[in-house]
Amino acid sequence: MGEASMSLKAALADVSDEVDRRFDALLEVPDDPRADLYRAMRHAAIGGGKRLRPLLTHATARLFGVDRDCSGRAGLAIECIHVYSLIHDDLPAMDNDDMRRGKPTVHKAFDEATAILAGDCLHALAFEVLSDPATHADPFVRAELVLDLARAAGPSGMAGGQMMDIEAERSNFDLLAVTRLQALKTGALIASAVEAGAILGKVPPEGRTSLRGYARDVGLAFQIADDLLDHEGDEAKMGKRLHKDADAGKETFLSLLGVDRAREQARMLVDQALTHLHSYGAEADLLRDIARFTLERDR
Amino acid sequence: MGEASMSLKAALADVSDEVDRRFDALLEVPDDPRADLYRAMRHAAIGGGKRLRPLLTHATARLFGVDRDCSGRAGLAIECIHVYSLIHDDLPAMDNDDMRRGKPTVHKAFDEATAILAGDCLHALAFEVLSDPATHADPFVRAELVLDLARAAGPSGMAGGQMMDIEAERSNFDLLAVTRLQALKTGALIASAVEAGAILGKVPPEGRTSLRGYARDVGLAFQIADDLLDHEGDEAKMGKRLHKDADAGKETFLSLLGVDRAREQARMLVDQALTHLHSYGAEADLLRDIARFTLERDR
Repeated sequence: MGEASMSLKAALADVSDEVDRRFDALLEVPDDPRADLYRAMRHAAIGGGKRLRPLLTHATARLFGVDRDCSGRAGLAIECIHVYSLIHDDLPAMDNDDMRRGKPTVHKAFDEATAILAGDCLHALAFEVLSDPATHADPFVRAELVLDLARAAGPSGMAGGQMMDIEAERSNFDLLAVTRLQALKTGALIASAVEAGAILGKVPPEGRTSLRGYARDVGLAFQIADDLLDHEGDEAKMGKRLHKDADAGKETFLSLLGVDRAREQARMLVDQALTHLHSYGAEADLLRDIARFTLERDR
Repeated sequence: MGEASMSLKAALADVSDEVDRRFDALLEVPDDPRADLYRAMRHAAIGGGKRLRPLLTHATARLFGVDRDCSGRAGLAIECIHVYSLIHDDLPAMDNDDMRRGKPTVHKAFDEATAILAGDCLHALAFEVLSDPATHADPFVRAELVLDLARAAGPSGMAGGQMMDIEAERSNFDLLAVTRLQALKTGALIASAVEAGAILGKVPPEGRTSLRGYARDVGLAFQIADDLLDHEGDEAKMGKRLHKDADAGKETFLSLLGVDRAREQARMLVDQALTHLHSYGAEADLLRDIARFTLERDR
């Protein structure tokens, strides 16, 4: 957990419990031939991960006095998308990973067909959760949440970034191309987690500019930190295979900038993220802690 | 095209052109490393398929005087889900099919990773299209469209049915289990296509009972006809491999009922579907023609 502040530690622990509880309720195993499908979703969704995205949604939503159940449901939907993307990314045809968060990946613990379907189901459930009236009483808010998350997940966002990542093995990406790849692959969903908090708070789009700047900077800093952890981290603690990009000959922030400049760049992005929050008071301290945490985490 | 009435033939041709045009606009190939991702989506989405679901949405929406662009967008979203499901179902880990609609499947024409991502992207695009204000001015309608389609696509619908289909190879399904499997695997999305037309028409849920009955019966009749075509059809005309279920030792309506009783059952379902429309006048003739067409199609 590195140097995370006490309040951030508590917030991370809280949101982990909460997301597990929400997944437990969402993914009750039925007594029919779909039981393994639900078990596979539970295997991937429950008991792991930093829950950074749901925490960002809560931390943003609290700026605008949003009901915590609403932001919890929106965070759950975003985590559904994140978890589905991990299941599909781990497949043999994609990254071919056997371990994730210290456990066998879904296609290893079950089989490939079940893993593909478990990912597809979590993908659909994200939008079922968001569009349910329980997420927000105002249908305009629900529709906007769906629109933003669908864009963040699809070809202009996460899945598009994943495709770029595949192409990155075949061609030489420069710093601009890697930045764009990561802005889509991991940045879009992190941005959507922050945006969801503002949408729930009924902040009009023109009032979200500084929060969008914050999210963009945090997303990039998070990815650079990920590259550094991949380089310096401990496979046992990380619970997954490391050095994959280097082994695949893919360019990363680290390979393009080197360790020192990458670390400096991440620090600069965190400072910039904090600057975007200057108009907010103590109510944004959790967002500030999250920005600093991107550099300090050790897994 | 079998004995389809002239007006149905015209409607099928119209909706085919329309869906192709809409996919063409939605899937413009970008000049960046995602180009193959878009090409793969276009390969699967454009120029094939009966477009039964978008036609059902139009045919239902016209009962309530819905703007044709609105029902066209909703139908496009449902077809996005249908096409994504075909891409994923064809994957080696699933049905392992090389041909679809007379063309190589996406993972054959491109590769498996691209096929997985192309499916994922069409899945997200469905919800992006539905939640866009262009689909309906009323956000309540947009949110309801999303909720209904997400349920129809996820573990309680299509993807859950696909999981049951995989389990059907391992256990002995009886008629009830096969009916439930098909109600989810193909029925849920067909029902959602009809439901979308009613949602766009702002018909309250209690006013949709007869249309739901119609959709359920048409969905089942369609599936029984599919089994019959699989048994009697022409591989060249169908553009895909046939007799897969029998080869895999899976029970189907046909294996459980035999040809004659299956055909009789499908006819009875179509009659029942027509009965559900008794309160509608000539404006429902297209829905009636579609119900009859399920038995008469030859591909």
